Amino acid sequence: MGWVPDEWSIDHESLIEAGGYVQRLKMYPYFDAAHYILTCLSIRQDLGPDAIQFSRKHPFSCWLSCLLMSFAGSFLSGFLLGEPIVTPLKRHDDVILATIVWYFVFYSPFDIFYKLCNLFPVKVGLSVLKEIQRASKIAAGVKHAGRIYPESYLVQILVGVAKGAGAGVVKIVEQLARGTWIPTNHEILRPSFTTKACVVAASVFTMERHSMYVTAPHDLVYLCVVGFFVYFKLASLCLSVHDVLQPIENILCAIFMGGIIDAFAKAVESTKQAIQSNRSLSEEEILAKEREKVLKKKKALQTQSNGVDKKND
Amino acid sequence: MGWVPDEWSIDHESLIEAGGYVQRLKMYPYFDAAHYILTCLSIRQDLGPDAIQFSRKHPFSCWLSCLLMSFAGSFLSGFLLGEPIVTPLKRHDDVILATIVWYFVFYSPFDIFYKLCNLFPVKVGLSVLKEIQRASKIAAGVKHAGRIYPESYLVQILVGVAKGAGAGVVKIVEQLARGTWIPTNHEILRPSFTTKACVVAASVFTMERHSMYVTAPHDLVYLCVVGFFVYFKLASLCLSVHDVLQPIENILCAIFMGGIIDAFAKAVESTKQAIQSNRSLSEEEILAKEREKVLKKKKALQTQSNGVDKKND
Amino acid sequence: MGWVPDEWSIDHESLIEAGGYVQRLKMYPYFDAAHYILTCLSIRQDLGPDAIQFSRKHPFSCWLSCLLMSFAGSFLSGFLLGEPIVTPLKRHDDVILATIVWYFVFYSPFDIFYKLCNLFPVKVGLSVLKEIQRASKIAAGVKHAGRIYPESYLVQILVGVAKGAGAGVVKIVEQLARGTWIPTNHEILRPSFTTKACVVAASVFTMERHSMYVTAPHDLVYLCVVGFFVYFKLASLCLSVHDVLQPIENILCAIFMGGIIDAFAKAVESTKQAIQSNRSLSEEEILAKEREKVLKKKKALQTQSNGVDKKND
Repeated sequence: MGWVPDEWSIDHESLIEAGGYVQRLKMYPYFDAAHYILTCLSIRQDLGPDAIQFSRKHPFSCWLSCLLMSFAGSFLSGFLLGEPIVTPLKRHDDVILATIVWYFVFYSPFDIFYKLCNLFPVKVGLSVLKEIQRASKIAAGVKHAGRIYPESYLVQILVGVAKGAGAGVVKIVEQLARGTWIPTNHEILRPSFTTKACVVAASVFTMERHSMYVTAPHDLVYLCVVGFFVYFKLASLCLSVHDVLQPIENILCAIFMGGIIDAFAKAVESTKQAIQSNRSLSEEEILAKEREKVLKKKKALQTQSNGVDKKND
Repeated sequence: MGWVPDEWSIDHESLIEAGGYVQRLKMYPYFDAAHYILTCLSIRQDLGPDAIQFSRKHPFSCWLSCLLMSFAGSFLSGFLLGEPIVTPLKRHDDVILATIVWYFVFYSPFDIFYKLCNLFPVKVGLSVLKEIQRASKIAAGVKHAGRIYPESYLVQILVGVAKGAGAGVVKIVEQLARGTWIPTNHEILRPSFTTKACVVAASVFTMERHSMYVTAPHDLVYLCVVGFFVYFKLASLCLSVHDVLQPIENILCAIFMGGIIDAFAKAVESTKQAIQSNRSLSEEEILAKEREKVLKKKKALQTQSNGVDKKND
Repeated sequence: MGWVPDEWSIDHESLIEAGGYVQRLKMYPYFDAAHYILTCLSIRQDLGPDAIQFSRKHPFSCWLSCLLMSFAGSFLSGFLLGEPIVTPLKRHDDVILATIVWYFVFYSPFDIFYKLCNLFPVKVGLSVLKEIQRASKIAAGVKHAGRIYPESYLVQILVGVAKGAGAGVVKIVEQLARGTWIPTNHEILRPSFTTKACVVAASVFTMERHSMYVTAPHDLVYLCVVGFFVYFKLASLCLSVHDVLQPIENILCAIFMGGIIDAFAKAVESTKQAIQSNRSLSEEEILAKEREKVLKKKKALQTQSNGVDKKND
């Protein structure tokens, strides 16, 4: 009989139930639409100030770009698994929804749709929906790859990541379709937090599939992953916390990717130099000191002889 | 009993018969050869004045380019459908024919072959053969995709277009194989008339397959598509009519791709400005008028007082 | 009863036995490791003086590059045959071995591993192992393609070459993953000796499969190919003989790729010009001579008349 009624208590059962509920959510149309809207917004942002002009001059290229990015995960996983790349275009509903979203983002009268979606609360809501869809896509990818390659963890993680964060890689092709080519800056060179989070999530799902380390029920694991994605998206949007994995990564890099070894090698190198310079200095010093001694002796002798001379005078 | 004998009359039956005849034409070797010749000519044109020198210095790259472009449609549709990309190389006859054509176009003594093929009547003849082959490829593509994805119209149209106009997209890879890279200008950004015509033809074939809108017998539809391609190719070659779809496209773009809405938005914007400027002007004017009135009154008063003063003097 | 004991004599039987032995060698782990080491070394060389810095800043991109190049042959042949591209990642042993090699090449303390592998005798040993692995991969590729396309020689050769020398083509993608893009210089434009040797080897294996021209037992053919690769690798490393196929190639190019025909055309052209210039010269000369004659006559007449005048004076 505490501060909170009994029914509010978060017990294991209700969490699993919630996880099951989240997992059974249908992605089409609301979650997919949120994903398409945010994708089109990011393309429009990528096009810069000429976005509107570009969409008027090259509508086909613009539409293809949006479609490529909207279905990037499916395209990439299809390519990796040797499956037909056109598979995501098989379902007309998805294509029509993506086309409608593209149309509204680029051609709505007075840019109402664009301005509306860029409002902060709307964007936050869309982002939450998109992250839930992302978790669902990763789980589907891992499951699908697990059916084809039941023994290969790496492929399962890879396909999961491709489904969840394929846009980063497909972006290279998408930019080419828009007539721009920026080979020096892409996801592979500087993976974003989303990509890293997808790697973590796909690894968790894969380990859970094989009952390695992760032994919690699937629904609970799923709920945790969704929570993880939503939480860090909100942190990124509201608190500008962009990469919580960076410190861990930095430590790991420092330990394994040469940080410590390089520092050690440098230290050894500088010690060596110091020792060498020390030695050569001491030798010089010895010589200098000897020379000094010789000089002092000479002077002493001279002063003595002078004294003797003076005495003699 | 008119000017033309009875047997000459174009009736439904004979048209269907002609369509069936055109459809049963074997593409190998004459139609394929025409396609290969025109492809190699276009590559040689694309290479510019250094074509001969390039073909001597990099024969392998040159050959691969020609092969890539000659089988571009098959490569692209294979890639899209997740089928082996090497499929078009399976038939030795085709590869040998394409190789012979490549050899003659680039290495024939005194460039006889090249000069011959560039003669206007020869080029027109080859173009007609190529357009007939194009229609046949599109029909085959739509049929093939329809067997794998019977429900998905979009995929059927896409594969048809890829078969008929894949060269535009494969050109990016082909240019890379030749050591050139022009990402800012390709078919996706500015689709040529051929590509658009292929979209139309593939759509017609797809609709005909599903008995949507198009209810004419297949042979007749096929004949119409062939006629459409040949007619506009001849118009392009002889009359320099390069894009008959441009006006329709411009109208559609004006209606749906922001033309009218932009104009409306601009009008609203300018009206707003005009109203605002009108108001501010009128306010200023009001002030100015009031000031003028005040000044006039003052002057009147001054003149009155002056008159009074003068009278007083 | 010669200088050499009887058991040392190289007879047919023992050669076949040796070939069978070489063919049954397990590639994993020693031969594969040698291949991975040399691949990673070449990537490090390709990165230039900033290699160490790059590996610290972009470890993921560096690892992906090494993996892409280590399994380049499998990736490329999978892509060509429409098989899952992830196939080479299915075997965890290979990926772990490649990862260990990558780690040692880039992050070993004091760069010991790199310096050790760059020692001349170590490099020669690794190269020999790698060439044996290459021959094995080509044979596997030809066999695999032969099972799917038993009739198509070209595809079998192509897949064999892709397996043996796929790194040259995959390098374009690998450079992109590292953020560099050099479209004007790749294997297709200037095939290296290795690629050409792979074409020869794949052709030999294909012909042997179909009992065309090559009728020796498979084990002997295999041994010859291995010897061919090892011999020319050693020649390249020790004697700096980089391309023994160049002279043959030059002759073939001269005969078939325009060399002779161009020379003939040039000769004809220059002969034509010479004849034309000869003719025009002679005509001019004729005119000049006629003019000269006329002038001489005139002069003669003048002198005659002068003489007459003088006589008259």
